[in-house]
Amino acid sequence: MNYHQLNEQDIAYLISIVGEEHAFVGKNIEKDYAHDELGTVSAYPDIHVFAFDKSHVSNIMKYAYEKNIPVTVRGSGTGLVGACVPLYGGILLDLSKMNKIIELDKTNLTLRVEPGVLLMDIYEHVEKENLFYAPDPGEKSATIGGNISTNAGGMRAIKYGVTRDWVRGLEVVLPDGEMVQLGGKVVKNSTGYGLKDLIIGSEGTLAIIVEATLKLIPKPKKTVSLLVPFASREDAIQAAPQLIMEHVLPTALEFLEKQSLQYSETFLGKKIPHNNYNAYLLISYDGNNEQAIEEDVEIASALCVDKYKALDVFLVDTEERRKSVWTVRGGFLEAIKASTSQIDECDVVLPRSNIGAFLEYVRKVSDDLKIRIPYFGHVGDGNLHIYLCKDDFSDDEWQEKLKVGFQALYEKAFSFGGLVSGEHGIGYAKREFMRKQLGEKQLAIMRGIKASFDPKHILNPGKVI
Amino acid sequence: MNYHQLNEQDIAYLISIVGEEHAFVGKNIEKDYAHDELGTVSAYPDIHVFAFDKSHVSNIMKYAYEKNIPVTVRGSGTGLVGACVPLYGGILLDLSKMNKIIELDKTNLTLRVEPGVLLMDIYEHVEKENLFYAPDPGEKSATIGGNISTNAGGMRAIKYGVTRDWVRGLEVVLPDGEMVQLGGKVVKNSTGYGLKDLIIGSEGTLAIIVEATLKLIPKPKKTVSLLVPFASREDAIQAAPQLIMEHVLPTALEFLEKQSLQYSETFLGKKIPHNNYNAYLLISYDGNNEQAIEEDVEIASALCVDKYKALDVFLVDTEERRKSVWTVRGGFLEAIKASTSQIDECDVVLPRSNIGAFLEYVRKVSDDLKIRIPYFGHVGDGNLHIYLCKDDFSDDEWQEKLKVGFQALYEKAFSFGGLVSGEHGIGYAKREFMRKQLGEKQLAIMRGIKASFDPKHILNPGKVI
Repeated sequence: MNYHQLNEQDIAYLISIVGEEHAFVGKNIEKDYAHDELGTVSAYPDIHVFAFDKSHVSNIMKYAYEKNIPVTVRGSGTGLVGACVPLYGGILLDLSKMNKIIELDKTNLTLRVEPGVLLMDIYEHVEKENLFYAPDPGEKSATIGGNISTNAGGMRAIKYGVTRDWVRGLEVVLPDGEMVQLGGKVVKNSTGYGLKDLIIGSEGTLAIIVEATLKLIPKPKKTVSLLVPFASREDAIQAAPQLIMEHVLPTALEFLEKQSLQYSETFLGKKIPHNNYNAYLLISYDGNNEQAIEEDVEIASALCVDKYKALDVFLVDTEERRKSVWTVRGGFLEAIKASTSQIDECDVVLPRSNIGAFLEYVRKVSDDLKIRIPYFGHVGDGNLHIYLCKDDFSDDEWQEKLKVGFQALYEKAFSFGGLVSGEHGIGYAKREFMRKQLGEKQLAIMRGIKASFDPKHILNPGKVI
Repeated sequence: MNYHQLNEQDIAYLISIVGEEHAFVGKNIEKDYAHDELGTVSAYPDIHVFAFDKSHVSNIMKYAYEKNIPVTVRGSGTGLVGACVPLYGGILLDLSKMNKIIELDKTNLTLRVEPGVLLMDIYEHVEKENLFYAPDPGEKSATIGGNISTNAGGMRAIKYGVTRDWVRGLEVVLPDGEMVQLGGKVVKNSTGYGLKDLIIGSEGTLAIIVEATLKLIPKPKKTVSLLVPFASREDAIQAAPQLIMEHVLPTALEFLEKQSLQYSETFLGKKIPHNNYNAYLLISYDGNNEQAIEEDVEIASALCVDKYKALDVFLVDTEERRKSVWTVRGGFLEAIKASTSQIDECDVVLPRSNIGAFLEYVRKVSDDLKIRIPYFGHVGDGNLHIYLCKDDFSDDEWQEKLKVGFQALYEKAFSFGGLVSGEHGIGYAKREFMRKQLGEKQLAIMRGIKASFDPKHILNPGKVI
């Protein structure tokens, strides 16, 4: 790409839009803004600007479009595939301070937010009104704009779906600065091509989200979790799809294995109760009627013990137990990161029937390559998070093992009907694998779509396609 | 558009693909295949062919692409906006006989079907296995391919979402005949742009669906409906969003008014119980626990009577009552059609807070234009079906009233945050209104998307964009 190199005049103009205290240039750009959470790729922008409202975004894009300057949008920077890294320099457009909750509409059960609002702030805001935003990605300090841009999933996807299912409308700024409204406060929509659904998951390459209208529902009055231990990984993983099939949809159905559990316990200095088993399912049910949930728990417990070889069933019913179990579960990624010098991730999603066989293969790759590969996963929805760990390997060895390891894992996943990414996206890091899976034809269509939105290719170049 | 005019050689080749008994030319093309359910636009193809498997579709498209022949796909022809009418002649590609249910996968809770499978056959197939496909459009003899192509909604959208939310994967034939797989048996997907979601709702203009993988859930064990009478339309409509807000999400929340009720009762020769009120809400709750549903019903009943001015609450609890109420509700469109010489429809969707004010305006337009405008609606999700009736007007008067009436209705809907179509699509009939609402910029992007899939514009020309 042949982009315009920012000069002093450009910098001065951009500063004039957001104000001097909100723009950073050269050595004043903090190191953290050159990479994301995993840091597998890194690059500095020419200018890092914080936008405070949609007119800032629109004015910056008008200028960038006219001058042919690349623009990369950033939220909290919690991504894992390098999507917010300004590979071609230019403008790093930071929306983390566009973080106002605009309107909670109780009649239409919608929440209008700016893109920089954090997931945890959304939960807090709506739950005190007895309302519920169901998507539950692990990283609660991610922005909603980032969640929408990766179509984030999380632990409640099995029952409540993913971020896509909870976005009713978007207001976006197009690469030329024009603002358009997609969808709205409406439940149904068959009005032309699904542009809103195209923006969702497009990782900042098609348009910039400046406002989102989220769907809410009345908050389920009660949630109960079960910690169900098994003698082996195989037993636990086989139980999961059976339990879904033979009972009701749980709210969450997570798989824990001794190894990841120990990393997390060590990292957090906390232990879960009953932590001496090889493998567990962590199962939740929610609802409004106490008796109905008790019945769900009873049926599930009986099925687990009588039919699926569970060794026991522990009710996670006190606030203390709930906190310890879910905190340890939530600490997996941080713990694995802390256990080594560098990690890279495989975020495949598979039909849930194939998880057992796939994890078997992961163990084989780990043995063959002599590399540590901890993992954890949402067995309820088939999405696994698998981490290759650098440990004491040299940079060259690490690159080689990553190459061979990823190739093996993705190929096996494809053969099982899996896809490259369940919820973390493609960004920079997974482009090669997506290309392999989808093939040239789908890529060509995607490139055509990209050109329809962004004919000058100034929005987040080098990502996704 | 400058398309190739089919000659004898083309016809012979196309016949050779599907076999002589499955292709019809000239006077052998039945009149019904020149229009859809509403018949507001009509045109004959040069050839009407039934495809029996995906290779037929692929081979026909390869030929059409090479020769530059327009192709319009048809399912059951139950559409209301002319989307399946071959405006430019060419090939009418009928998929209604590609109607095999390929695989019910209980482990992954998915159903693989050909596009011509009827909605009612899907229900029957999965419900006997205690599984549930939740989308519930009124027209049960529609094909699943048609449902996907319009992103059909239906009565359970408020709780379970629309067709889009129940499609896990699609296999499609592109305009040049190449076949690609989008999504699969997976719950999550963040692998590049959402092409599957782009095909959903694109009304046969981007690619041809030859297989769909649908999501299923365990079937709720019990459903109860309430028929709740009110003294006036206003009271009923005000109650709806309050009930959603102050209780749980109902499975369905429909609005019935005396007039539409009477049309349907007369048409069907059936009466609902307690049919002497001005307006009703028809409310359903489903679940697995008897007591929980009883509690839902109790709370809802108390709220309706004590807080929302309901005159009574009738439990629709016997099979006979259920049948009579839902049959009469299901007969609205047929009854309105039968009451006049011609109708045309406005399928707007609004934020549910604005339904009352909008229906007020519908009555005003009806009075001002002196035209009969019956309607009914999904008040739970804000989607209204409003019918202008030709009655004794001349063709010219009818066209004039349609023009003025639709313009007024859509403009008012837009001012209320509504959209042109909630579930019936744009097709041929609503293009002008969509253009007005979305504006030139969005249309240009949609045209770019169209060109990325279909550079020769041979797929369903003259529709949507």
